[in-house]
Amino acid sequence: MHKYGLHGSLTARPGEGQQLAAILLEASRLVSTAKGCHLYLVSQSPDDAETVWVTEVRDSKSDHDNSLQVPGVGELIARAMPILAGQPQKGQELAVLGGAGIG
Amino acid sequence: MHKYGLHGSLTARPGEGQQLAAILLEASRLVSTAKGCHLYLVSQSPDDAETVWVTEVRDSKSDHDNSLQVPGVGELIARAMPILAGQPQKGQELAVLGGAGIG
Repeated sequence: MHKYGLHGSLTARPGEGQQLAAILLEASRLVSTAKGCHLYLVSQSPDDAETVWVTEVRDSKSDHDNSLQVPGVGELIARAMPILAGQPQKGQELAVLGGAGIG
Repeated sequence: MHKYGLHGSLTARPGEGQQLAAILLEASRLVSTAKGCHLYLVSQSPDDAETVWVTEVRDSKSDHDNSLQVPGVGELIARAMPILAGQPQKGQELAVLGGAGIG
């Protein structure tokens, strides 16, 4: 049984990349205790300070979808939307086989 | 201080995807105890059984480079090379800010 992975990015308006990263790090703390959450990694592109990557691993896609209902997440989405440059793109879905470093 | 992330893929020759994944899962066990290794995740594309993704997080790029010297890793590389479809491409480097689920 594979875990569900998602690797995707959000791009902030010019100068807002640090703020977007801070919001996503706050999100990682909220969802860390949600059902089925193994990983919620927040990264930046070394060559693009406005693009923030999120790499998630959950037991299932439904655990991912349900995480949007975690208390406080809606408020973070509302804070992030105005500083995004355009609509979020769908990330890359992964069938996670295993490896080292995730619970 | 950011951690060093690398998200990249290897593509196997037709029919060899499972074998390639098995080799990379074996590699994850070898490098899991190497210095500075936080994550070595092995995944497949849901729509392409021959492409295997590896998502790594280490304290630094040098910890990544040094992991190639871990005993046994050279042998795994030698087993993987003949079943690859072409040369490995350089992965996507990430400046990992933090998040949930990594040590």
